[in-house]
Amino acid sequence: MKIWQKATGSKKEVESFTIGRDPEFDIILAPFDVLGSMAHAAMLQKIGLLTEEENTTLQQGLKEIYFEIEQGKFKIEAGVEDVHSQVEFLLTERYGDVGKKLHSGRSRNDQVLVDLKLYYRAAIRDLVEASAELSELLLSLSKKHQSDLMPGYTHTQLAMPSSFGLWFSSFAEGISEDLSLMKAAFDLCNKNPLGSAAGYGSSFPLDRTMTTELLGFADLHHNVINAQNSRGKTERTLAFAMAGMAGTLNRMADDVCIFMNQHFGFISFPDDLTTGSSIMPHKKNPDVFELIRAKTNQIQAVPNTVALLLTNSTTGYHRDLQLLKEEIFPAIASLQSCLEMTTFMLKSIKVQSGILKDEFYKHLFSVEVVNDLVLKGMPFRDAYKKVGLDIEKGDFSPDQNSLHHVHEGSIGNLNLTEIQEKNEKAVAQFNFEKIDEAYKKLLS
Amino acid sequence: MKIWQKATGSKKEVESFTIGRDPEFDIILAPFDVLGSMAHAAMLQKIGLLTEEENTTLQQGLKEIYFEIEQGKFKIEAGVEDVHSQVEFLLTERYGDVGKKLHSGRSRNDQVLVDLKLYYRAAIRDLVEASAELSELLLSLSKKHQSDLMPGYTHTQLAMPSSFGLWFSSFAEGISEDLSLMKAAFDLCNKNPLGSAAGYGSSFPLDRTMTTELLGFADLHHNVINAQNSRGKTERTLAFAMAGMAGTLNRMADDVCIFMNQHFGFISFPDDLTTGSSIMPHKKNPDVFELIRAKTNQIQAVPNTVALLLTNSTTGYHRDLQLLKEEIFPAIASLQSCLEMTTFMLKSIKVQSGILKDEFYKHLFSVEVVNDLVLKGMPFRDAYKKVGLDIEKGDFSPDQNSLHHVHEGSIGNLNLTEIQEKNEKAVAQFNFEKIDEAYKKLLS
Amino acid sequence: MKIWQKATGSKKEVESFTIGRDPEFDIILAPFDVLGSMAHAAMLQKIGLLTEEENTTLQQGLKEIYFEIEQGKFKIEAGVEDVHSQVEFLLTERYGDVGKKLHSGRSRNDQVLVDLKLYYRAAIRDLVEASAELSELLLSLSKKHQSDLMPGYTHTQLAMPSSFGLWFSSFAEGISEDLSLMKAAFDLCNKNPLGSAAGYGSSFPLDRTMTTELLGFADLHHNVINAQNSRGKTERTLAFAMAGMAGTLNRMADDVCIFMNQHFGFISFPDDLTTGSSIMPHKKNPDVFELIRAKTNQIQAVPNTVALLLTNSTTGYHRDLQLLKEEIFPAIASLQSCLEMTTFMLKSIKVQSGILKDEFYKHLFSVEVVNDLVLKGMPFRDAYKKVGLDIEKGDFSPDQNSLHHVHEGSIGNLNLTEIQEKNEKAVAQFNFEKIDEAYKKLLS
Amino acid sequence: MKIWQKATGSKKEVESFTIGRDPEFDIILAPFDVLGSMAHAAMLQKIGLLTEEENTTLQQGLKEIYFEIEQGKFKIEAGVEDVHSQVEFLLTERYGDVGKKLHSGRSRNDQVLVDLKLYYRAAIRDLVEASAELSELLLSLSKKHQSDLMPGYTHTQLAMPSSFGLWFSSFAEGISEDLSLMKAAFDLCNKNPLGSAAGYGSSFPLDRTMTTELLGFADLHHNVINAQNSRGKTERTLAFAMAGMAGTLNRMADDVCIFMNQHFGFISFPDDLTTGSSIMPHKKNPDVFELIRAKTNQIQAVPNTVALLLTNSTTGYHRDLQLLKEEIFPAIASLQSCLEMTTFMLKSIKVQSGILKDEFYKHLFSVEVVNDLVLKGMPFRDAYKKVGLDIEKGDFSPDQNSLHHVHEGSIGNLNLTEIQEKNEKAVAQFNFEKIDEAYKKLLS
Repeated sequence: MKIWQKATGSKKEVESFTIGRDPEFDIILAPFDVLGSMAHAAMLQKIGLLTEEENTTLQQGLKEIYFEIEQGKFKIEAGVEDVHSQVEFLLTERYGDVGKKLHSGRSRNDQVLVDLKLYYRAAIRDLVEASAELSELLLSLSKKHQSDLMPGYTHTQLAMPSSFGLWFSSFAEGISEDLSLMKAAFDLCNKNPLGSAAGYGSSFPLDRTMTTELLGFADLHHNVINAQNSRGKTERTLAFAMAGMAGTLNRMADDVCIFMNQHFGFISFPDDLTTGSSIMPHKKNPDVFELIRAKTNQIQAVPNTVALLLTNSTTGYHRDLQLLKEEIFPAIASLQSCLEMTTFMLKSIKVQSGILKDEFYKHLFSVEVVNDLVLKGMPFRDAYKKVGLDIEKGDFSPDQNSLHHVHEGSIGNLNLTEIQEKNEKAVAQFNFEKIDEAYKKLLS
Repeated sequence: MKIWQKATGSKKEVESFTIGRDPEFDIILAPFDVLGSMAHAAMLQKIGLLTEEENTTLQQGLKEIYFEIEQGKFKIEAGVEDVHSQVEFLLTERYGDVGKKLHSGRSRNDQVLVDLKLYYRAAIRDLVEASAELSELLLSLSKKHQSDLMPGYTHTQLAMPSSFGLWFSSFAEGISEDLSLMKAAFDLCNKNPLGSAAGYGSSFPLDRTMTTELLGFADLHHNVINAQNSRGKTERTLAFAMAGMAGTLNRMADDVCIFMNQHFGFISFPDDLTTGSSIMPHKKNPDVFELIRAKTNQIQAVPNTVALLLTNSTTGYHRDLQLLKEEIFPAIASLQSCLEMTTFMLKSIKVQSGILKDEFYKHLFSVEVVNDLVLKGMPFRDAYKKVGLDIEKGDFSPDQNSLHHVHEGSIGNLNLTEIQEKNEKAVAQFNFEKIDEAYKKLLS
Repeated sequence: MKIWQKATGSKKEVESFTIGRDPEFDIILAPFDVLGSMAHAAMLQKIGLLTEEENTTLQQGLKEIYFEIEQGKFKIEAGVEDVHSQVEFLLTERYGDVGKKLHSGRSRNDQVLVDLKLYYRAAIRDLVEASAELSELLLSLSKKHQSDLMPGYTHTQLAMPSSFGLWFSSFAEGISEDLSLMKAAFDLCNKNPLGSAAGYGSSFPLDRTMTTELLGFADLHHNVINAQNSRGKTERTLAFAMAGMAGTLNRMADDVCIFMNQHFGFISFPDDLTTGSSIMPHKKNPDVFELIRAKTNQIQAVPNTVALLLTNSTTGYHRDLQLLKEEIFPAIASLQSCLEMTTFMLKSIKVQSGILKDEFYKHLFSVEVVNDLVLKGMPFRDAYKKVGLDIEKGDFSPDQNSLHHVHEGSIGNLNLTEIQEKNEKAVAQFNFEKIDEAYKKLLS
Repeated sequence: MKIWQKATGSKKEVESFTIGRDPEFDIILAPFDVLGSMAHAAMLQKIGLLTEEENTTLQQGLKEIYFEIEQGKFKIEAGVEDVHSQVEFLLTERYGDVGKKLHSGRSRNDQVLVDLKLYYRAAIRDLVEASAELSELLLSLSKKHQSDLMPGYTHTQLAMPSSFGLWFSSFAEGISEDLSLMKAAFDLCNKNPLGSAAGYGSSFPLDRTMTTELLGFADLHHNVINAQNSRGKTERTLAFAMAGMAGTLNRMADDVCIFMNQHFGFISFPDDLTTGSSIMPHKKNPDVFELIRAKTNQIQAVPNTVALLLTNSTTGYHRDLQLLKEEIFPAIASLQSCLEMTTFMLKSIKVQSGILKDEFYKHLFSVEVVNDLVLKGMPFRDAYKKVGLDIEKGDFSPDQNSLHHVHEGSIGNLNLTEIQEKNEKAVAQFNFEKIDEAYKKLLS
């Protein structure tokens, strides 16, 4: 039975087509649905639509279900349409008609919206924490390998000296910068849509500020149409933030794949982290990083799929929005696993040392030599000419062992402390603790 | 002549293929190139690579060029490769060899990067200001039309009462929320890449903090590889921010097109703002909004084009990055014009009043009637049943004139002040004044 | 155990990350894997790498497995890496060492490639047949409703008279035109990659023409690198073809959603094919068509995801290609269900008749009246002026009942026979029978 | 003055916003507009809407304009809206009122549609011919370098022996296979939309078969709504076909960039086809191929931009469609230049010979050695074990000079004749001569 069900019912073909993959996503939303309902019920009491006793019963019943979910005991029973109906059904079964009062002043639209926002907040937290762990590892690898020089490329051509210290920490800083987009997504998730009902508000005197506080939201979507329009916009913004982070991981993975190529041979991983070939004993395929590269491409494709689902459509809920879950939920899981696997793999990375000592790389040092001469007083054009001629004559033997780069962020001055502070500051601004406190209060 | 030119030169086919549309974009970058050079020169003096006199000469020469650009007198002469060469060429022509010293400790890569960041900062400012103007107009239209009810739709089906007050201000709040993404883009643009040279730093003891301050940057990209990797990432993030805003405008434009359809007939525009037909005198085509819809779709496509240009490519400059300008520069101009034209058109919008008084719309009020009964004490299920039966019997005549929605953000309580504050706060965080002050100092 | 497994084995984290969703897709590929192996084995006998007896045993064993798959009895056992290993494992278990000989002269790469091509051919056949069924239905609806006039819109504005006959058959012809792209995809799927091994061929004297014929391929990828490069290109082309067809369905679905809107009210569906609302008895939401609209948008996004997975990557197999299945396989199923649900729904469509008789629509007829005057001898400009003045004076009362459009493809001359022939011809060119014959022979 | 202009006129802001980049694209369409008008006029005479004399005058006038366009003498004058108005204006100026009769039975919509289809046909011809020239060059390079072995990679890891013969011809065959998609696009362009008027046909008894033949179309869009819906679908299909070809070029360009990297060092180009560095004399940057890689990515992004412009929009012309030109026209020019530049560059490619003789590559030959043993009678598992042990013992010295690959499409049997025939057959099916004949007749 569906709440909106008329006598005739839907043909089974329609039912199966419209339900799609919702059941698997609904389980993910279950704990958030319960939290949203707890806040809603408390608010209904305040505005007089529930008695104190009714609210107490509902809070008790919802808390029970919350812990059942936590313990993996919750499931959506056959014939029950969705997670929302299952929760209402359990409440009614256990506590009687009070369960049916829970939906007053709320529509399925704002209920789902609030569930999604709460889930996205939690998912962002996991992503941010996984990215912070990766950043820390990268900084420690940078420190460890600060003296391991490697070539720097432009146009995929040998260009200038670089170092593993520089390379590792470039991604540490890159990831911390990706958190700006993630914060923009978080801010949008962190606004309360409850009370927007079907997108046009309600004639009940709802107290939207109260639910905003109970759920630990930083703010509310004031305008109810705008709250409804945030369905889709929230997903688009989250997709952007994930695509941004994916872009950074993609580049690192692509670097790893090329650095593992035998012509380069800069890095390697233990045998049990690579895959081999049935016939070529020397073969160590970087499958994990190829898949990170590919998965981060899939994630980078998500904003566009979301755009196609949303564009050229008018204000107001459309069933199309349902399919956003199919794009966003798997992308969240995929990005999380890419972050974790990158960390997992890099813990075992082996870096080749002494790479640049090979004469093959000596031209990389030409700019250094010119600059040295300039610093010693020779005019730039003269220094440039001299080095050029030396190279032409085959008379160019630079010191390939060390470099004297001293400015901020250079090989000899990696600014690891500054980057670490940047990371920490970027993470701190999310203020996840506020959510913890709100939930603790709700569930107490 | 090119700086890197060898005796042989490039074949003209290669030259024409590689230069592409750069000349038209370089003119846009010109003033920013000069500002970047002023900061760089001042820093070179500080670290002893320029004498005070040389720096004074360069500052003077660069200031001259800056004002020539402002007055439209600057152009890239035939045979000169790009804007950077043109500036250097003018300096050398006017002030002699000191012009050639300007490039010490800098590569074309970080020079272009800083130009782009300064340009994007300025472009974002224009976008933010145009969006703020649109928001203000929307808020005033919302206030003006707060009593003009209209239908609200879900599934493109008549659903609940809505109002023009609600509709207009939904976009005012929506646009202010889009500024979060724009701020994330701005933050990335607002980091100094100077000193990263070709992406691997320099052996000169550059003072990167000094140029950061001189150019009014909020921060620097510490790691020099990360600075180079910000080429592309900056564009991607800006593309996301523009796509986000475009998504909001797209929905408004689509609403306008459907509301102007004769079956709806909710709004209209003066004849001179619509286009007609050679034969149908009643026809008023919403071409401007159709084009806003289409242009915002083009803008929403940009993140993906940027992703395709960047993905699966290793660390280090690639010439591919050059083409980002072809995507981003026109998108900036297009979004700016969409914001301005939306504002321009909405200033003349005519709203139909009294729409919901027609009996055609009476079912929209069924939820209101049910809720009224509940508020008067009737249990929800009984109220629901009574109204359902009344409708079936043809005995349903709700009051179609007024609504009593009182909660935050509802038809009767639009929260316009709160939304305006949200807008102002969103704009204020950009702190554009800091840039003004820095430039004023540089150019003084 | 994996074929390439070294002593150390892969860490479980790596294994779980790399295996991904392959098991669910492998089951789909199973029957095609068996067919490919049958052809490969027969060829190995011909070139002397298998004895006649060995081949007979393998053919027998593979046939058994094929029928087990058909009967749903086949599964990939725990610990077995993939479908290919499972088949080899079963053969070896049942028939001894001959099972291990099957893989000679073949690599996992060309084995998977041939499986995919065979599966795609079968999937395309289902899509083509479902689209043909839809076309037929559209043509019969067109005939049935050839006299039911409706408005035609340009710029979403009322423009000219149209008809349901015209509207239905427009999609019948549109779908038949989409088959051109599908044929291009089919042609690429219909080329044999077997013998390309890991993408660089084999030192065994394989007879590739023989496997081409045995599997009913129309041709082979001659060059073995090109065969390997067809992994990805095949998926891209199939994605294009599916996106093309999805684009046509998307438009039809969007038309349906707007025509069901109460302002239009042109069409309706029985209650049990729409979804309702808990409170508004008049509400009939077009969820199925909203979801078709959304699903066809997801399908239209696939080419881009595929492009991101493939672009900027060098010749040769990359593990990234594995993830193409995650994009293509669900898209095939989704498009198939969209075609079937469109057919299912349209079988019950109810069309409003007499729409254009309402005076509301009279201006639609102005062009008709002008043209009539021209055909009766009045110069165009005079006719145009006269009608324009009549309209202005309120003196315009055209006959709103009938139209005299007679040219090919117009309201009065729908060319249904021509369109039907076009459809049939488009379907016939696939020549699916050739595949039937080949498989029948293989399995006999 | 615009044909549809009412007394008030459009505000200049609206005019400038709506006109966009049309003027630059209209010049491209000019010759095709004239050809379409010639066919339309001839048809109008046949159905009695023009006298023989009027038609003769129009044919004469249009021919004049056609040759003026060919000679570069045609331009759209200030104040004239578009190319169509300019042609009509010239005719009327030169021949009087008969010029005004040309538009009978035609709408701007089907006029533009036919112009676009004729232009796309011509553009496809150029693309096909440029691709054929590239294929031929690749085949001759393949023949020339059939004995130049190189490594083949999988997972970007050294895998098996390959050859330049194999590499070059892989793209020759790949490009010929890309012509299937191009043919699908051509077929859609090669259908006559004339007579569909504004998308709902005309009450004039137009002879659409006649214009189909006069313009050398292979067929017509029968249904007039479908003809209008082909606006957009044609562009989408052409975008797919261009993206397909771009994908092939992208891979070749990426291979070239990596093969030019100094670690690989497989190929090089003369100095005047590469770009250098101001300081590193050994640097030869592959800018042309980097830009081909980037431009082909832009082209691969076009289908998606087109999808965003089209999706979720109802039947009937929308002004949005105008912007398709901004996506398609530059993409055509870009792909054409990428094809030409690839050909231009490859004419000068220098291939390193004897690459695989270096001991560095010996493991590439392990599969060969195993297979040789198998062919000499040793069971596969034994051969495999023996080679594995030899490698472990450091006792592996394969013959690195030659390979005995004999099967179709392998290193020793490149099937160049078969690939050439495939190319020729793929080109021949376009039957461009039919268009030549039709135009010759029209212009005679």
